[in-house]
Amino acid sequence: MNYPNGKKPSQQLKKVGSSRTSFSNRGMTLEEDINETNLFYLHSNKAIIHKKPTPVQIVKVDYPKRSAAVIKEGYFKQASTTDYNGIYRERYIDFEAKETKNKTSFPLANIHEHQISHMLSICNHGGICFMIIRFAVHDETFFVPAVKLFPYWESQYNGGKKSIPYNKIKEAGELIPFKYQARVDYLTIIDQLYF
Amino acid sequence: MNYPNGKKPSQQLKKVGSSRTSFSNRGMTLEEDINETNLFYLHSNKAIIHKKPTPVQIVKVDYPKRSAAVIKEGYFKQASTTDYNGIYRERYIDFEAKETKNKTSFPLANIHEHQISHMLSICNHGGICFMIIRFAVHDETFFVPAVKLFPYWESQYNGGKKSIPYNKIKEAGELIPFKYQARVDYLTIIDQLYF
Repeated sequence: MNYPNGKKPSQQLKKVGSSRTSFSNRGMTLEEDINETNLFYLHSNKAIIHKKPTPVQIVKVDYPKRSAAVIKEGYFKQASTTDYNGIYRERYIDFEAKETKNKTSFPLANIHEHQISHMLSICNHGGICFMIIRFAVHDETFFVPAVKLFPYWESQYNGGKKSIPYNKIKEAGELIPFKYQARVDYLTIIDQLYF
Repeated sequence: MNYPNGKKPSQQLKKVGSSRTSFSNRGMTLEEDINETNLFYLHSNKAIIHKKPTPVQIVKVDYPKRSAAVIKEGYFKQASTTDYNGIYRERYIDFEAKETKNKTSFPLANIHEHQISHMLSICNHGGICFMIIRFAVHDETFFVPAVKLFPYWESQYNGGKKSIPYNKIKEAGELIPFKYQARVDYLTIIDQLYF
């Protein structure tokens, strides 16, 4: 897999640090912000949304006496679904979150084919499915409904671009408000778009 | 945590082998049967239900040149939710699966407090939440709605039993039919109970 900036996805989620001009995010990664938001939703009983654990292929495990089992050899597996799912207002919620340092576009190499298939199925089964895309340099986080992504995904195989321009994301998506307790308050967007 | 037969939950899911009197399950574990069932549901576009990856605390990772990252030290974490979730007929589905070798009762030590809290929340938010419990010796697999479990869970703290008698599970639950392609065909029970 060829990542746009030569980095692995996990590295792309790392904090941007001093390049940030706004203090609103205090250098937290998108993943950290979403996890905090989900915890706030959970504790305030608004929604039950969890990040799925990173899938690991476990090859070798040691069982030392009187202490916990230790994984001695394991490998990262590619996730076959999106990272987050759960329930909100009786509806099934499913999404993926990606952060990019790119200023002008979101590279489609950030998404995998099977994630797109999964999102398409979720839409067909009546779930609420979307992506949260952060442009770190602009310090903007967008809620992009999955149905708005599919045409861009398809067009790359028909001579189209390998990325979605920033201004198209701005058009297709909704800017997610930053709040103190819900740092990426995506439920407010779900309220607007789906209820 | 004190497991009833001195084994860890993962070991309890291992196959029963020659003690089985029926050929229907061919020595497959409940987890394997459910994974196959979910794959059948997925491929036939009936439902999208996945098992969550085992949560692992990764401590040390090696990055050898020209090959995949290797996890050199990791530990198993306790799951904070149930193992399976997804969407069926536009509804949010959430369940846990446990197999016991016990003949006369299902030991509550197989479930964790935070899993019960999670299931309670899912019910309150309008999800379809249940447990799949297999009595390996009887070769019977039951669908037990979460709401039927809660009273047993509560009563153990008020001098009640630390297990649910087999005959009570039979009363509270529904026997899940075994089918060739859907080895644990729990969606048929969901159709009966929730639609």
